[in-house]
Amino acid sequence: MSERIIYLNGNYLAENEAKLTVFDRGLLFADAVYEGFGILDGQLVDFIYHMHRLERSLGEISIPMTFSIDEMFQALMGLIKKNKAQTGFLYLHITRGAGDRAFHYHDHYVPNIFAFTQGEKFSADDTPPAIELLTYSDLRWARRDIKSTNLLAQVMAKQAANQSGAYEALMVDANGFVTEAGSSSFFFVKDDMLYVRPVSREILHGITRQTMLRVAKERGILLVERTYSLDEVLTADEALITGSSIYVLPVGKIDGNVIGDGKAGVFTLALRKGYLAKARTEFYLPSVL
Amino acid sequence: MSERIIYLNGNYLAENEAKLTVFDRGLLFADAVYEGFGILDGQLVDFIYHMHRLERSLGEISIPMTFSIDEMFQALMGLIKKNKAQTGFLYLHITRGAGDRAFHYHDHYVPNIFAFTQGEKFSADDTPPAIELLTYSDLRWARRDIKSTNLLAQVMAKQAANQSGAYEALMVDANGFVTEAGSSSFFFVKDDMLYVRPVSREILHGITRQTMLRVAKERGILLVERTYSLDEVLTADEALITGSSIYVLPVGKIDGNVIGDGKAGVFTLALRKGYLAKARTEFYLPSVL
Repeated sequence: MSERIIYLNGNYLAENEAKLTVFDRGLLFADAVYEGFGILDGQLVDFIYHMHRLERSLGEISIPMTFSIDEMFQALMGLIKKNKAQTGFLYLHITRGAGDRAFHYHDHYVPNIFAFTQGEKFSADDTPPAIELLTYSDLRWARRDIKSTNLLAQVMAKQAANQSGAYEALMVDANGFVTEAGSSSFFFVKDDMLYVRPVSREILHGITRQTMLRVAKERGILLVERTYSLDEVLTADEALITGSSIYVLPVGKIDGNVIGDGKAGVFTLALRKGYLAKARTEFYLPSVL
Repeated sequence: MSERIIYLNGNYLAENEAKLTVFDRGLLFADAVYEGFGILDGQLVDFIYHMHRLERSLGEISIPMTFSIDEMFQALMGLIKKNKAQTGFLYLHITRGAGDRAFHYHDHYVPNIFAFTQGEKFSADDTPPAIELLTYSDLRWARRDIKSTNLLAQVMAKQAANQSGAYEALMVDANGFVTEAGSSSFFFVKDDMLYVRPVSREILHGITRQTMLRVAKERGILLVERTYSLDEVLTADEALITGSSIYVLPVGKIDGNVIGDGKAGVFTLALRKGYLAKARTEFYLPSVL
Protein backbone atom coordinates (compact mmCIF):
# COMPACT_ATOMS: atom_id res chain seq x y z
CA MET A 1 0.00 0.00 0.00
CA SER A 2 1.10 3.55 -0.70
CA GLU A 3 1.87 6.36 1.72
CA ARG A 4 -1.67 7.59 1.99
CA ILE A 5 -3.09 9.59 4.86
CA ILE A 6 -6.22 8.04 6.38
CA TYR A 7 -9.00 9.83 8.21
CA LEU A 8 -10.03 8.09 11.45
CA ASN A 9 -12.33 9.61 14.06
CA GLY A 10 -11.22 13.18 13.56
CA ASN A 11 -7.53 12.44 13.02
CA TYR A 12 -5.40 12.20 9.91
CA LEU A 13 -3.12 9.18 10.32
CA ALA A 14 -0.43 7.31 8.43
CA GLU A 15 -1.82 4.23 6.72
CA ASN A 16 -0.20 1.76 9.14
CA GLU A 17 -1.62 3.64 12.13
CA ALA A 18 -5.25 3.53 10.97
CA LYS A 19 -6.59 0.62 12.99
CA LEU A 20 -9.78 -0.35 14.79
CA THR A 21 -10.28 -2.67 17.74
CA VAL A 22 -11.29 -6.22 16.89
CA PHE A 23 -14.41 -5.51 18.99
CA ASP A 24 -15.68 -3.02 16.44
CA ARG A 25 -19.18 -4.11 15.39
CA GLY A 26 -18.38 -3.34 11.77
CA LEU A 27 -15.90 -6.20 11.92
CA LEU A 28 -17.94 -8.58 14.10
CA PHE A 29 -21.40 -8.07 12.56
CA ALA A 30 -20.96 -5.94 9.41
CA ASP A 31 -22.91 -3.43 11.51
CA ALA A 32 -21.74 -0.51 9.38
CA VAL A 33 -22.61 1.58 6.35
CA TYR A 34 -20.48 3.35 3.80
CA GLU A 35 -20.37 5.71 0.86
CA GLY A 36 -18.01 6.06 -2.08
CA PHE A 37 -17.50 9.42 -3.78
CA GLY A 38 -15.83 10.23 -7.06
CA ILE A 39 -13.08 12.85 -6.91
CA LEU A 40 -12.92 15.23 -9.89
CA ASP A 41 -10.80 18.40 -10.04
CA GLY A 42 -9.93 17.81 -6.37
CA GLN A 43 -13.65 18.01 -5.45
CA LEU A 44 -16.17 15.46 -4.15
CA VAL A 45 -18.64 14.44 -6.86
CA ASP A 46 -22.37 14.34 -5.98
CA PHE A 47 -21.40 15.05 -2.36
CA ILE A 48 -24.77 16.16 -1.01
CA TYR A 49 -26.65 13.27 -2.64
CA HIS A 50 -24.24 10.73 -1.16
CA MET A 51 -24.64 12.37 2.24
CA HIS A 52 -28.42 12.16 2.03
CA ARG A 53 -28.17 8.45 1.20
CA LEU A 54 -25.69 7.96 4.05
CA GLU A 55 -28.09 9.68 6.44
CA ARG A 56 -30.85 7.35 5.28
CA SER A 57 -28.68 4.21 5.61
CA LEU A 58 -27.66 5.21 9.15
CA GLY A 59 -31.28 5.89 10.04
CA GLU A 60 -32.52 2.54 8.71
CA ILE A 61 -30.27 0.70 11.19
CA SER A 62 -30.40 3.33 13.94
CA ILE A 63 -26.75 4.32 13.94
CA PRO A 64 -26.63 7.91 15.19
CA MET A 65 -25.24 10.50 12.78
CA THR A 66 -22.63 12.14 15.00
CA PHE A 67 -21.59 14.88 12.56
CA SER A 68 -23.17 17.55 10.40
CA ILE A 69 -22.95 17.39 6.63
CA ASP A 70 -20.70 20.43 6.62
CA GLU A 71 -18.40 18.95 9.27
CA MET A 72 -18.03 15.81 7.19
CA PHE A 73 -17.42 17.90 4.09
CA GLN A 74 -14.55 19.72 5.81
CA ALA A 75 -13.11 16.43 7.13
CA LEU A 76 -13.19 14.76 3.71
CA MET A 77 -11.90 17.80 1.83
CA GLY A 78 -9.05 17.87 4.36
CA LEU A 79 -8.30 14.24 3.46
CA ILE A 80 -8.34 15.04 -0.27
CA LYS A 81 -5.93 17.93 0.25
CA LYS A 82 -3.56 15.89 2.42
CA ASN A 83 -3.44 13.22 -0.25
CA LYS A 84 -3.24 15.78 -3.09
CA ALA A 85 -6.02 13.80 -4.77
CA GLN A 86 -7.18 15.48 -7.99
CA THR A 87 -9.05 12.46 -9.35
CA GLY A 88 -10.08 9.06 -8.04
CA PHE A 89 -12.32 7.76 -5.29
CA LEU A 90 -13.01 8.56 -1.65
CA TYR A 91 -14.37 5.84 0.65
CA LEU A 92 -16.21 6.75 3.86
CA HIS A 93 -17.14 4.05 6.43
CA ILE A 94 -19.21 4.39 9.60
CA THR A 95 -19.57 1.52 12.08
CA ARG A 96 -21.90 1.41 15.07
CA GLY A 97 -18.87 1.33 17.40
CA ALA A 98 -17.27 -1.25 19.65
CA GLY A 99 -18.35 -3.34 22.61
CA ASP A 100 -18.48 -6.83 24.03
CA ARG A 101 -19.88 -9.17 21.40
CA ALA A 102 -23.69 -9.26 21.49
CA PHE A 103 -25.96 -8.93 18.47
CA HIS A 104 -28.19 -6.34 20.08
CA TYR A 105 -26.76 -2.90 20.69
CA HIS A 106 -26.90 -0.05 23.14
CA ASP A 107 -27.18 3.70 22.90
CA HIS A 108 -23.75 4.21 24.44
CA TYR A 109 -21.80 2.89 21.44
CA VAL A 110 -19.74 5.57 19.73
CA PRO A 111 -19.55 5.20 15.93
CA ASN A 112 -16.12 4.68 14.41
CA ILE A 113 -15.64 6.73 11.26
CA PHE A 114 -12.86 6.39 8.75
CA ALA A 115 -12.16 7.45 5.19
CA PHE A 116 -9.46 6.99 2.61
CA THR A 117 -8.75 7.87 -1.02
CA GLN A 118 -7.87 5.59 -3.91
CA GLY A 119 -6.67 6.34 -7.46
CA GLU A 120 -8.98 6.54 -10.44
CA LYS A 121 -9.87 3.45 -12.50
CA PHE A 122 -10.65 5.22 -15.79
CA SER A 123 -9.75 8.80 -16.62
CA ALA A 124 -12.89 10.93 -16.45
CA ASP A 125 -11.88 12.85 -19.55
CA ASP A 126 -10.99 9.97 -21.87
CA THR A 127 -13.38 7.70 -23.73
CA PRO A 128 -13.49 4.51 -21.64
CA PRO A 129 -13.28 1.00 -23.11
CA ALA A 130 -16.46 -1.07 -23.44
CA ILE A 131 -16.29 -3.51 -20.53
CA GLU A 132 -17.54 -7.08 -20.21
CA LEU A 133 -20.04 -8.42 -17.66
CA LEU A 134 -20.48 -11.92 -16.26
CA THR A 135 -23.91 -12.87 -14.93
CA TYR A 136 -24.09 -14.25 -11.40
CA SER A 137 -26.94 -15.19 -9.06
CA ASP A 138 -28.03 -12.32 -6.87
CA LEU A 139 -27.47 -13.86 -3.42
CA ARG A 140 -27.91 -10.67 -1.42
CA TRP A 141 -30.18 -9.99 1.55
CA ALA A 142 -33.60 -8.35 1.44
CA ARG A 143 -32.46 -4.78 2.28
CA ARG A 144 -30.22 -3.90 -0.61
CA ASP A 145 -31.36 -0.28 -0.31
CA ILE A 146 -29.24 0.06 2.85
CA LYS A 147 -25.64 0.67 1.78
CA SER A 148 -24.18 -1.63 4.43
CA THR A 149 -20.90 -3.54 4.47
CA ASN A 150 -22.73 -6.90 4.20
CA LEU A 151 -21.01 -7.37 0.85
CA LEU A 152 -19.93 -11.00 0.66
CA ALA A 153 -22.51 -11.79 -2.06
CA GLN A 154 -21.04 -8.99 -4.16
CA VAL A 155 -17.50 -10.17 -3.40
CA MET A 156 -18.42 -13.62 -4.71
CA ALA A 157 -20.08 -12.21 -7.82
CA LYS A 158 -17.26 -9.82 -8.64
CA GLN A 159 -14.61 -12.45 -7.94
CA ALA A 160 -16.31 -14.80 -10.41
CA ALA A 161 -16.42 -11.97 -12.97
CA ASN A 162 -12.78 -11.12 -12.39
CA GLN A 163 -11.68 -14.74 -12.71
CA SER A 164 -13.54 -15.04 -16.01
CA GLY A 165 -11.83 -11.92 -17.34
CA ALA A 166 -14.95 -9.75 -17.07
CA TYR A 167 -14.78 -6.34 -15.42
CA GLU A 168 -18.03 -6.52 -13.46
CA ALA A 169 -20.81 -8.95 -12.49
CA LEU A 170 -24.44 -8.60 -13.60
CA MET A 171 -26.68 -9.95 -10.85
CA VAL A 172 -29.76 -11.91 -11.83
CA ASP A 173 -32.44 -12.97 -9.36
CA ALA A 174 -34.02 -16.43 -9.01
CA ASN A 175 -36.76 -15.46 -11.49
CA GLY A 176 -34.35 -14.43 -14.25
CA PHE A 177 -34.73 -10.69 -13.67
CA VAL A 178 -31.67 -8.47 -13.67
CA THR A 179 -31.31 -6.56 -10.41
CA GLU A 180 -28.12 -4.56 -10.89
CA ALA A 181 -24.38 -4.99 -11.38
CA GLY A 182 -22.00 -6.19 -8.63
CA SER A 183 -21.12 -2.72 -7.39
CA SER A 184 -22.76 -0.50 -9.99
CA SER A 185 -26.17 0.30 -11.47
CA PHE A 186 -27.13 -1.24 -14.81
CA PHE A 187 -29.07 0.22 -17.77
CA PHE A 188 -29.69 -0.65 -21.36
CA VAL A 189 -30.80 1.23 -24.47
CA LYS A 190 -33.23 -0.22 -26.99
CA ASP A 191 -34.97 1.64 -29.82
CA ASP A 192 -33.63 4.96 -28.47
CA MET A 193 -35.15 4.41 -25.03
CA LEU A 194 -33.19 4.05 -21.78
CA TYR A 195 -34.34 1.10 -19.63
CA VAL A 196 -33.82 1.30 -15.88
CA ARG A 197 -35.05 -0.79 -12.99
CA PRO A 198 -37.09 1.27 -10.49
CA VAL A 199 -35.66 1.73 -7.00
CA SER A 200 -37.01 -0.58 -4.30
CA ARG A 201 -35.51 -2.62 -1.47
CA GLU A 202 -34.14 -4.97 -4.13
CA ILE A 203 -31.49 -2.60 -5.45
CA LEU A 204 -29.25 0.10 -4.12
CA HIS A 205 -30.43 3.61 -4.88
CA GLY A 206 -27.41 4.56 -6.97
CA ILE A 207 -26.28 8.17 -6.70
CA THR A 208 -24.46 8.26 -10.02
CA ARG A 209 -27.57 6.53 -11.45
CA GLN A 210 -29.79 9.30 -10.11
CA THR A 211 -27.69 12.17 -11.41
CA MET A 212 -27.29 10.48 -14.80
CA LEU A 213 -31.06 9.99 -15.02
CA ARG A 214 -31.52 13.73 -14.44
CA VAL A 215 -29.15 14.33 -17.34
CA ALA A 216 -31.08 11.85 -19.50
CA LYS A 217 -34.37 13.60 -18.74
CA GLU A 218 -32.91 17.03 -19.47
CA ARG A 219 -31.74 15.74 -22.82
CA GLY A 220 -35.19 14.38 -23.61
CA ILE A 221 -34.16 10.72 -23.61
CA LEU A 222 -37.21 8.53 -23.10
CA LEU A 223 -37.01 6.45 -19.92
CA VAL A 224 -38.63 3.05 -19.44
CA GLU A 225 -38.65 2.35 -15.72
CA ARG A 226 -39.50 -1.31 -15.04
CA THR A 227 -37.96 -4.67 -14.19
CA TYR A 228 -36.60 -6.71 -17.09
CA SER A 229 -35.17 -10.13 -17.76
CA LEU A 230 -31.66 -11.05 -18.83
CA ASP A 231 -33.09 -12.30 -22.15
CA GLU A 232 -34.41 -8.82 -22.87
CA VAL A 233 -31.06 -7.22 -22.03
CA LEU A 234 -29.26 -9.45 -24.53
CA THR A 235 -31.25 -7.87 -27.38
CA ALA A 236 -30.28 -4.32 -26.36
CA ASP A 237 -28.65 -1.79 -28.69
CA GLU A 238 -26.42 -0.48 -25.88
CA ALA A 239 -25.76 -1.34 -22.24
CA LEU A 240 -24.06 0.71 -19.56
CA ILE A 241 -23.24 0.79 -15.87
CA THR A 242 -22.83 3.68 -13.45
CA GLY A 243 -21.01 4.01 -10.15
CA SER A 244 -19.16 6.61 -8.13
CA SER A 245 -15.72 5.18 -8.97
CA ILE A 246 -16.42 4.66 -12.68
CA TYR A 247 -19.06 7.34 -13.50
CA VAL A 248 -20.64 5.91 -16.69
CA LEU A 249 -19.09 2.94 -18.52
CA PRO A 250 -20.18 1.24 -21.75
CA VAL A 251 -20.84 -2.51 -21.67
CA GLY A 252 -19.68 -4.39 -24.78
CA LYS A 253 -20.40 -8.00 -23.83
CA ILE A 254 -22.46 -9.99 -21.33
CA ASP A 255 -21.36 -13.62 -20.83
CA GLY A 256 -19.58 -13.36 -24.16
CA ASN A 257 -22.70 -12.14 -25.98
CA VAL A 258 -21.97 -8.94 -27.90
CA ILE A 259 -24.31 -6.06 -27.03
CA GLY A 260 -25.09 -3.82 -30.00
CA ASP A 261 -21.87 -3.57 -31.98
CA GLY A 262 -19.81 -4.33 -28.86
CA LYS A 263 -18.45 -0.78 -28.64
CA ALA A 264 -19.37 2.26 -26.58
CA GLY A 265 -22.74 3.43 -27.89
CA VAL A 266 -23.80 6.98 -28.72
CA PHE A 267 -26.32 7.21 -25.88
CA THR A 268 -23.77 5.87 -23.41
CA LEU A 269 -21.06 8.29 -24.44
CA ALA A 270 -23.46 11.23 -24.42
CA LEU A 271 -24.69 10.26 -20.96
CA ARG A 272 -21.13 9.88 -19.66
CA LYS A 273 -20.14 13.27 -21.00
CA GLY A 274 -23.38 14.82 -19.74
CA TYR A 275 -22.97 13.24 -16.32
CA LEU A 276 -19.42 14.51 -15.87
CA ALA A 277 -20.41 18.01 -17.01
CA LYS A 278 -23.39 18.02 -14.63
CA ALA A 279 -21.26 16.75 -11.72
CA ARG A 280 -18.77 19.55 -12.33
CA THR A 281 -21.52 22.18 -12.10
CA GLU A 282 -22.78 20.77 -8.79
CA PHE A 283 -19.74 20.66 -6.50
CA TYR A 284 -20.87 21.28 -2.94
CA LEU A 285 -20.56 24.65 -1.25
CA PRO A 286 -20.84 24.30 2.52
CA SER A 287 -23.33 26.65 4.13
CA VAL A 288 -20.60 28.12 6.34
CA LEU A 289 -18.90 29.67 3.32
CA MET B 1 -14.45 -4.03 28.70
CA SER B 2 -12.52 -6.24 31.10
CA GLU B 3 -8.83 -7.05 31.22
CA ARG B 4 -9.02 -9.95 28.83
CA ILE B 5 -6.19 -11.31 26.75
CA ILE B 6 -6.97 -11.48 23.03
CA TYR B 7 -5.45 -13.84 20.47
CA LEU B 8 -4.40 -12.08 17.25
CA ASN B 9 -2.32 -13.69 14.50
CA GLY B 10 -0.23 -15.86 16.81
CA ASN B 11 0.12 -13.33 19.62
CA TYR B 12 -1.65 -12.91 22.95
CA LEU B 13 -2.37 -9.22 23.41
CA ALA B 14 -3.99 -6.88 25.89
CA GLU B 15 -7.52 -5.98 24.85
CA ASN B 16 -6.65 -2.41 23.86
CA GLU B 17 -3.78 -3.65 21.67
CA ALA B 18 -5.88 -6.06 19.60
CA LYS B 19 -6.50 -4.02 16.46
CA LEU B 20 -6.76 -4.57 12.73
CA THR B 21 -6.07 -2.16 9.89
CA VAL B 22 -9.11 -0.39 8.46
CA PHE B 23 -8.15 -2.05 5.15
CA ASP B 24 -9.01 -5.49 6.51
CA ARG B 25 -11.55 -7.06 4.14
CA GLY B 26 -13.54 -8.34 7.09
CA LEU B 27 -14.30 -4.73 7.91
CA LEU B 28 -14.72 -3.43 4.35
CA PHE B 29 -16.71 -6.33 2.84
CA ALA B 30 -17.66 -8.71 5.70
CA ASP B 31 -15.27 -11.02 3.85
CA ALA B 32 -14.76 -13.18 6.91
CA VAL B 33 -16.07 -16.26 8.71
CA TYR B 34 -16.26 -17.16 12.36
CA GLU B 35 -17.03 -19.82 14.93
CA GLY B 36 -18.25 -19.67 18.51
CA PHE B 37 -17.37 -22.41 20.97
CA GLY B 38 -18.80 -23.13 24.38
CA ILE B 39 -16.27 -23.43 27.22
CA LEU B 40 -17.05 -26.09 29.82
CA ASP B 41 -14.63 -27.26 32.52
CA GLY B 42 -11.94 -25.11 30.85
CA GLN B 43 -12.35 -27.11 27.61
CA LEU B 44 -13.69 -26.26 24.15
CA VAL B 45 -17.11 -27.82 23.53
CA ASP B 46 -17.71 -29.64 20.22
CA PHE B 47 -14.30 -28.41 19.07
CA ILE B 48 -13.73 -30.76 16.14
CA TYR B 49 -17.25 -30.23 14.75
CA HIS B 50 -16.84 -26.47 14.86
CA MET B 51 -13.49 -26.80 13.10
CA HIS B 52 -15.00 -28.91 10.35
CA ARG B 53 -17.70 -26.30 9.81
CA LEU B 54 -15.06 -23.56 9.83
CA GLU B 55 -13.04 -25.43 7.22
CA ARG B 56 -16.17 -25.70 5.08
CA SER B 57 -17.05 -21.98 5.48
CA LEU B 58 -13.51 -20.98 4.51
CA GLY B 59 -13.62 -23.31 1.50
CA GLU B 60 -16.97 -21.97 0.27
CA ILE B 61 -15.49 -18.48 -0.10
CA SER B 62 -11.94 -19.60 -0.93
CA ILE B 63 -10.17 -18.21 2.11
CA PRO B 64 -7.10 -20.39 2.65
CA MET B 65 -6.93 -22.28 5.95
CA THR B 66 -3.47 -21.26 7.12
CA PHE B 67 -3.35 -23.50 10.20
CA SER B 68 -3.91 -27.10 11.16
CA ILE B 69 -6.74 -28.10 13.46
CA ASP B 70 -4.23 -29.04 16.16
CA GLU B 71 -2.38 -25.74 15.84
CA MET B 72 -5.64 -23.87 16.28
CA PHE B 73 -6.55 -26.09 19.24
CA GLN B 74 -3.27 -25.20 20.96
CA ALA B 75 -3.73 -21.49 20.19
CA LEU B 76 -7.29 -21.41 21.57
CA MET B 77 -6.49 -23.53 24.64
CA GLY B 78 -3.64 -21.10 25.31
CA LEU B 79 -6.18 -18.26 25.20
CA ILE B 80 -8.49 -20.11 27.58
CA LYS B 81 -5.65 -20.67 30.04
CA LYS B 82 -4.45 -17.06 29.88
CA ASN B 83 -7.98 -15.89 30.64
CA LYS B 84 -8.53 -18.61 33.27
CA ALA B 85 -11.83 -19.32 31.54
CA GLN B 86 -13.63 -22.31 33.06
CA THR B 87 -17.00 -21.59 31.49
CA GLY B 88 -18.32 -19.23 28.84
CA PHE B 89 -17.80 -18.66 25.16
CA LEU B 90 -14.85 -18.46 22.81
CA TYR B 91 -15.15 -16.48 19.57
CA LEU B 92 -12.82 -17.17 16.61
CA HIS B 93 -12.79 -14.88 13.55
CA ILE B 94 -10.92 -15.28 10.28
CA THR B 95 -10.86 -12.56 7.62
CA ARG B 96 -9.44 -12.85 4.12
CA GLY B 97 -6.79 -10.27 4.99
CA ALA B 98 -6.11 -6.67 4.04
CA GLY B 99 -5.46 -4.80 0.82
CA ASP B 100 -6.49 -1.81 -1.26
CA ARG B 101 -10.26 -1.74 -1.54
CA ALA B 102 -11.48 -3.87 -4.46
CA PHE B 103 -14.27 -6.42 -4.28
CA HIS B 104 -12.28 -9.14 -6.03
CA TYR B 105 -9.36 -10.65 -4.16
CA HIS B 106 -5.90 -12.04 -4.77
CA ASP B 107 -4.00 -15.07 -3.62
CA HIS B 108 -1.45 -12.94 -1.78
CA TYR B 109 -3.81 -11.81 0.97
CA VAL B 110 -2.85 -13.15 4.38
CA PRO B 111 -5.83 -14.00 6.60
CA ASN B 112 -6.16 -12.12 9.87
CA ILE B 113 -7.14 -14.40 12.73
CA PHE B 114 -8.33 -13.35 16.15
CA ALA B 115 -10.12 -14.91 19.09
CA PHE B 116 -11.45 -13.82 22.45
CA THR B 117 -13.40 -15.26 25.37
CA GLN B 118 -16.58 -14.01 26.97
CA GLY B 119 -18.39 -15.02 30.15
CA GLU B 120 -21.25 -17.52 30.24
CA LYS B 121 -24.86 -16.41 29.78
CA PHE B 122 -26.55 -19.26 31.67
CA SER B 123 -24.77 -21.68 34.01
CA ALA B 124 -24.42 -25.03 32.25
CA ASP B 125 -25.29 -26.89 35.44
CA ASP B 126 -28.40 -24.98 36.49
CA THR B 127 -31.88 -25.31 35.05
CA PRO B 128 -32.22 -22.30 32.74
CA PRO B 129 -35.30 -20.08 32.58
CA ALA B 130 -37.79 -20.49 29.72
CA ILE B 131 -37.00 -17.64 27.37
CA GLU B 132 -39.23 -15.61 25.07
CA LEU B 133 -38.94 -15.22 21.30
CA LEU B 134 -40.09 -12.41 19.01
CA THR B 135 -40.78 -13.26 15.37
CA TYR B 136 -39.00 -11.19 12.73
CA SER B 137 -38.74 -11.37 8.94
CA ASP B 138 -35.78 -13.42 7.78
CA LEU B 139 -33.94 -10.82 5.70
CA ARG B 140 -30.72 -12.79 5.24
CA TRP B 141 -28.86 -13.64 2.05
CA ALA B 142 -29.09 -16.90 0.11
CA ARG B 143 -26.00 -18.62 1.63
CA ARG B 144 -26.92 -18.91 5.29
CA ASP B 145 -24.95 -22.16 5.45
CA ILE B 146 -21.73 -20.13 5.31
CA LYS B 147 -20.99 -18.85 8.80
CA SER B 148 -19.89 -15.42 7.61
CA THR B 149 -19.91 -12.08 9.39
CA ASN B 150 -22.66 -10.73 7.09
CA LEU B 151 -24.87 -10.47 10.16
CA LEU B 152 -26.78 -7.21 9.90
CA ALA B 153 -30.10 -9.02 9.29
CA GLN B 154 -29.55 -10.93 12.52
CA VAL B 155 -28.53 -7.74 14.34
CA MET B 156 -31.82 -6.14 13.26
CA ALA B 157 -33.84 -9.20 14.31
CA LYS B 158 -32.14 -9.58 17.69
CA GLN B 159 -32.30 -5.86 18.38
CA ALA B 160 -36.06 -5.92 17.78
CA ALA B 161 -36.34 -8.92 20.11
CA ASN B 162 -34.23 -7.25 22.78
CA GLN B 163 -36.22 -4.02 22.58
CA SER B 164 -39.47 -5.96 23.04
CA GLY B 165 -38.07 -7.73 26.11
CA ALA B 166 -37.62 -11.07 24.32
CA TYR B 167 -34.35 -12.97 24.60
CA GLU B 168 -34.07 -14.07 20.97
CA ALA B 169 -35.65 -13.56 17.54
CA LEU B 170 -37.45 -16.30 15.60
CA MET B 171 -36.92 -15.71 11.90
CA VAL B 172 -39.80 -16.36 9.51
CA ASP B 173 -39.43 -16.32 5.73
CA ALA B 174 -41.70 -14.57 3.21
CA ASN B 175 -43.87 -17.71 2.94
CA GLY B 176 -44.55 -17.97 6.68
CA PHE B 177 -42.06 -20.77 7.28
CA VAL B 178 -39.79 -20.65 10.29
CA THR B 179 -36.12 -20.77 9.30
CA GLU B 180 -34.27 -20.56 12.61
CA ALA B 181 -33.66 -18.23 15.54
CA GLY B 182 -31.56 -15.05 15.33
CA SER B 183 -28.32 -16.70 16.39
CA SER B 184 -29.49 -20.17 17.41
CA SER B 185 -31.24 -23.24 15.99
CA PHE B 186 -34.94 -23.75 16.69
CA PHE B 187 -36.90 -26.94 17.47
CA PHE B 188 -40.30 -27.83 18.80
CA VAL B 189 -41.88 -30.89 20.38
CA LYS B 190 -45.37 -32.06 19.57
CA ASP B 191 -46.98 -35.38 20.54
CA ASP B 192 -43.60 -36.65 21.82
CA MET B 193 -41.84 -35.97 18.51
CA LEU B 194 -38.99 -33.50 17.97
CA TYR B 195 -39.49 -31.27 14.91
CA VAL B 196 -36.42 -29.89 13.18
CA ARG B 197 -35.88 -28.09 9.90
CA PRO B 198 -33.47 -29.98 7.60
CA VAL B 199 -30.14 -28.36 6.79
CA SER B 200 -29.92 -26.52 3.47
CA ARG B 201 -28.52 -23.22 2.26
CA GLU B 202 -31.43 -21.55 4.05
CA ILE B 203 -30.17 -22.20 7.59
CA LEU B 204 -26.87 -22.47 9.37
CA HIS B 205 -25.77 -26.01 10.08
CA GLY B 206 -25.79 -25.65 13.85
CA ILE B 207 -23.12 -27.58 15.70
CA THR B 208 -24.95 -27.69 19.03
CA ARG B 209 -28.02 -28.67 16.97
CA GLN B 210 -26.14 -31.57 15.42
CA THR B 211 -24.74 -32.93 18.69
CA MET B 212 -28.12 -32.55 20.40
CA LEU B 213 -29.80 -34.44 17.56
CA ARG B 214 -27.34 -37.31 18.10
CA VAL B 215 -28.38 -37.32 21.75
CA ALA B 216 -32.05 -37.32 20.76
CA LYS B 217 -31.52 -40.28 18.43
CA GLU B 218 -29.59 -42.22 21.06
CA ARG B 219 -32.48 -41.69 23.47
CA GLY B 220 -34.97 -42.96 20.92
CA ILE B 221 -36.76 -39.63 20.49
CA LEU B 222 -38.67 -39.59 17.20
CA LEU B 223 -37.46 -36.88 14.82
CA VAL B 224 -39.60 -35.15 12.23
CA GLU B 225 -37.25 -33.43 9.82
CA ARG B 226 -39.15 -30.97 7.60
CA THR B 227 -39.98 -27.30 7.14
CA TYR B 228 -42.88 -25.95 9.16
CA SER B 229 -44.93 -22.78 9.52
CA LEU B 230 -45.12 -20.43 12.45
CA ASP B 231 -48.78 -21.42 12.91
CA GLU B 232 -47.71 -25.01 13.49
CA VAL B 233 -45.08 -23.96 16.03
CA LEU B 234 -47.64 -22.08 18.09
CA THR B 235 -49.50 -25.35 18.78
CA ALA B 236 -46.35 -27.09 20.08
CA ASP B 237 -46.07 -28.79 23.47
CA GLU B 238 -42.49 -27.55 23.92
CA ALA B 239 -40.08 -25.32 22.01
CA LEU B 240 -36.33 -24.97 22.39
CA ILE B 241 -33.27 -23.32 20.88
CA THR B 242 -29.65 -24.45 20.73
CA GLY B 243 -26.39 -22.56 20.28
CA SER B 244 -22.79 -22.74 21.35
CA SER B 245 -23.12 -19.96 23.92
CA ILE B 246 -26.42 -21.20 25.38
CA TYR B 247 -26.33 -24.98 24.76
CA VAL B 248 -30.04 -25.88 24.97
CA LEU B 249 -32.63 -23.38 26.21
CA PRO B 250 -36.37 -23.82 26.72
CA VAL B 251 -38.74 -21.39 24.97
CA GLY B 252 -41.77 -20.35 27.02
CA LYS B 253 -43.40 -17.76 24.75
CA ILE B 254 -43.37 -16.66 21.13
CA ASP B 255 -44.77 -13.16 20.46
CA GLY B 256 -46.51 -13.42 23.80
CA ASN B 257 -48.17 -16.76 22.95
CA VAL B 258 -47.49 -19.32 25.64
CA ILE B 259 -45.92 -22.54 24.34
CA GLY B 260 -47.10 -25.65 26.22
CA ASP B 261 -47.36 -24.59 29.86
CA GLY B 262 -44.80 -21.82 29.33
CA LYS B 263 -42.14 -23.60 31.38
CA ALA B 264 -39.12 -25.70 30.48
CA GLY B 265 -40.51 -28.97 29.11
CA VAL B 266 -39.39 -32.49 29.96
CA PHE B 267 -37.97 -33.20 26.50
CA THR B 268 -36.09 -29.91 26.53
CA LEU B 269 -34.55 -30.46 29.94
CA ALA B 270 -33.59 -34.05 29.10
CA LEU B 271 -31.99 -32.89 25.85
CA ARG B 272 -30.10 -30.12 27.63
CA LYS B 273 -28.79 -32.50 30.26
CA GLY B 274 -27.99 -35.12 27.63
CA TYR B 275 -26.25 -32.57 25.42
CA LEU B 276 -24.02 -31.32 28.21
CA ALA B 277 -23.13 -34.86 29.29
CA LYS B 278 -22.33 -35.82 25.69
CA ALA B 279 -20.22 -32.68 25.17
CA ARG B 280 -18.23 -33.50 28.29
CA THR B 281 -17.40 -36.99 26.98
CA GLU B 282 -16.18 -35.57 23.64
CA PHE B 283 -13.56 -32.99 24.56
CA TYR B 284 -10.91 -32.93 21.85
CA LEU B 285 -7.58 -34.69 22.21
CA PRO B 286 -5.07 -33.37 19.70
CA SER B 287 -3.29 -36.04 17.67
CA VAL B 288 0.09 -34.78 18.89
CA LEU B 289 -0.66 -36.00 22.42
